Amino acid sequence: MGPHPAVAAIRLAVRRVLHDVLNQHCTQDRRDPPLVLVACSGGADSMALASALTFEAPRLGVRAGGITVDHGLQEGSDLRAAEVALRLRALRLDPVEAVTIRVGRDGGPEAAARDARYAALDAAAERHGAAAVLLGHTRDDQAETVLLGLARGSGTRSLSGMAATTGRDGRYRRPFLELDRQTARKACLMQSLPVWDDPHNADPAYTRSRLRHEGLPALEKALGKGVVEALARTAQLSRDDADALDAWAADAERTVLDDAGTLDVAALFALPAAVRRRVLRRAAIGAGSPAGSLFARHIEEVDRLITAWRGQGAINLPGRVGVRRQGGRLVIRQG
Amino acid sequence: MGPHPAVAAIRLAVRRVLHDVLNQHCTQDRRDPPLVLVACSGGADSMALASALTFEAPRLGVRAGGITVDHGLQEGSDLRAAEVALRLRALRLDPVEAVTIRVGRDGGPEAAARDARYAALDAAAERHGAAAVLLGHTRDDQAETVLLGLARGSGTRSLSGMAATTGRDGRYRRPFLELDRQTARKACLMQSLPVWDDPHNADPAYTRSRLRHEGLPALEKALGKGVVEALARTAQLSRDDADALDAWAADAERTVLDDAGTLDVAALFALPAAVRRRVLRRAAIGAGSPAGSLFARHIEEVDRLITAWRGQGAINLPGRVGVRRQGGRLVIRQG
Repeated sequence: MGPHPAVAAIRLAVRRVLHDVLNQHCTQDRRDPPLVLVACSGGADSMALASALTFEAPRLGVRAGGITVDHGLQEGSDLRAAEVALRLRALRLDPVEAVTIRVGRDGGPEAAARDARYAALDAAAERHGAAAVLLGHTRDDQAETVLLGLARGSGTRSLSGMAATTGRDGRYRRPFLELDRQTARKACLMQSLPVWDDPHNADPAYTRSRLRHEGLPALEKALGKGVVEALARTAQLSRDDADALDAWAADAERTVLDDAGTLDVAALFALPAAVRRRVLRRAAIGAGSPAGSLFARHIEEVDRLITAWRGQGAINLPGRVGVRRQGGRLVIRQG
Repeated sequence: MGPHPAVAAIRLAVRRVLHDVLNQHCTQDRRDPPLVLVACSGGADSMALASALTFEAPRLGVRAGGITVDHGLQEGSDLRAAEVALRLRALRLDPVEAVTIRVGRDGGPEAAARDARYAALDAAAERHGAAAVLLGHTRDDQAETVLLGLARGSGTRSLSGMAATTGRDGRYRRPFLELDRQTARKACLMQSLPVWDDPHNADPAYTRSRLRHEGLPALEKALGKGVVEALARTAQLSRDDADALDAWAADAERTVLDDAGTLDVAALFALPAAVRRRVLRRAAIGAGSPAGSLFARHIEEVDRLITAWRGQGAINLPGRVGVRRQGGRLVIRQG
């Protein structure tokens, strides 16, 4: 008898990613098997991921290790991290490391924790010479991420959720991105793996937690059970669309930009609005405006220099970047 | 003292649209003032719209009339329609007409009612020679429409909601698309206009009603008050993105298609995924596959003939359209 379907599903998902990592690695020395790390909080998703990695890795000639991150935000989080490290060692992962981080405040508590976590995972991957780091995000996490992007109202890119592969050299991999959370939980249960429920996940102070426990269930009640799947599909389609439009904008920028760094208004006008606004955004960032402070309303104002010209003055963008129309050209300069 | 801010807001929104209609109309005979009709259910949104039209039209040299549609779905709907027609006449709209329609069953109750309604409005516009028909959809309706599109999970076009201008020659106009429902209600109240609350709007049997009364409020609770605005902004950005990508796909189709109606696989492969899938969809529809039955999974299967070629056989699409790869070309044929 084969494994329970949930266990089979998590293993298949990990196997596919390991094959992909091996394909990338095959140009390197075969006597040196690649190391794949799992980032594990001790929760059901990442414990399921660790268990699947520990099963598949030796069969494919991959070394498997684990990292757990102590965010230091709760009393006893160090003990928790040590416990998770023990569990990872019990799964025969090697090396296993518990890393302590200091979470700052930039961009709010969730963003700050995320930034510090990825910095620590990057450092651990470098330290151990890992070919990949597996992350336990599921399709449900993806759906939540799309809704968070929707709440920003900043368009197609912000609806594209998390990529299956990200980071330097595609270091981060998300094998469970098309798997639902329920499958990961079931797989832990069937393998008698103890899991830890992060109290933050149910804390209504966190936007993502409110979304998970109230927002998404209400949306499913109104729209039907397929909402999570529809959101995950939206992420993939939006990512492809945003990639294509970004490529178009990069091409277009080269044709409207002259050597003096000014943009041809007539050529900009001829572009579709979606492409023109992306070119303007690129040009503003290129001139020194910080991407994170540059909002749609800024770009719309610049766009009106092209589409609704009535002699308006210079537009000021974040980062002391000014945009003015001079004759048939747009001059974008910091100063 | 000027009018209440809500009344000023609805009038400004209508004035802008009337200016636009006049600009379109100005090439025609000036002695023949254009007729603008308002489609009015008797609800707050469309009553506010009718009141603003009746105020602005004479100031701009526009004739104003009104149409109300009796869907014949509820007991006494004919009386209701007659009552709304009386109210429109009391606002000095002329002509005013109550039109009775028969709602079919195609595509579900909501889609069938919508199709029959627009057919009746089209006919009324033709009969009266109207230059435009105003619709009372607000920013809240737009937000709901985006969420309904999100639930389909079919990508950027389905997130683009309703356009401000649609229909033949841009006949339908939605002046309130950037105005919230609360403003329309307040404007009715301030003008002592009686309004009718359609019981369907609160009927949980309807998806849109569940969304309005449960889904959206829960989402606002989780994500914050700006959700409706963010959804409306998403609609606009998605529409622009979808338009640009459709234009790219139309261009690309011409370059990959030969005189025999087959597509060049290598040229398709070189396109971004988002554009390639749109080209494949266009080609399938061009070969006779009905757009409404052609889903993302169909196109993905065709796409694998290009991106994951391992000698697979012909793919069958709805409408007896077959796609096969033959040498370096894709043959898409009905038969």
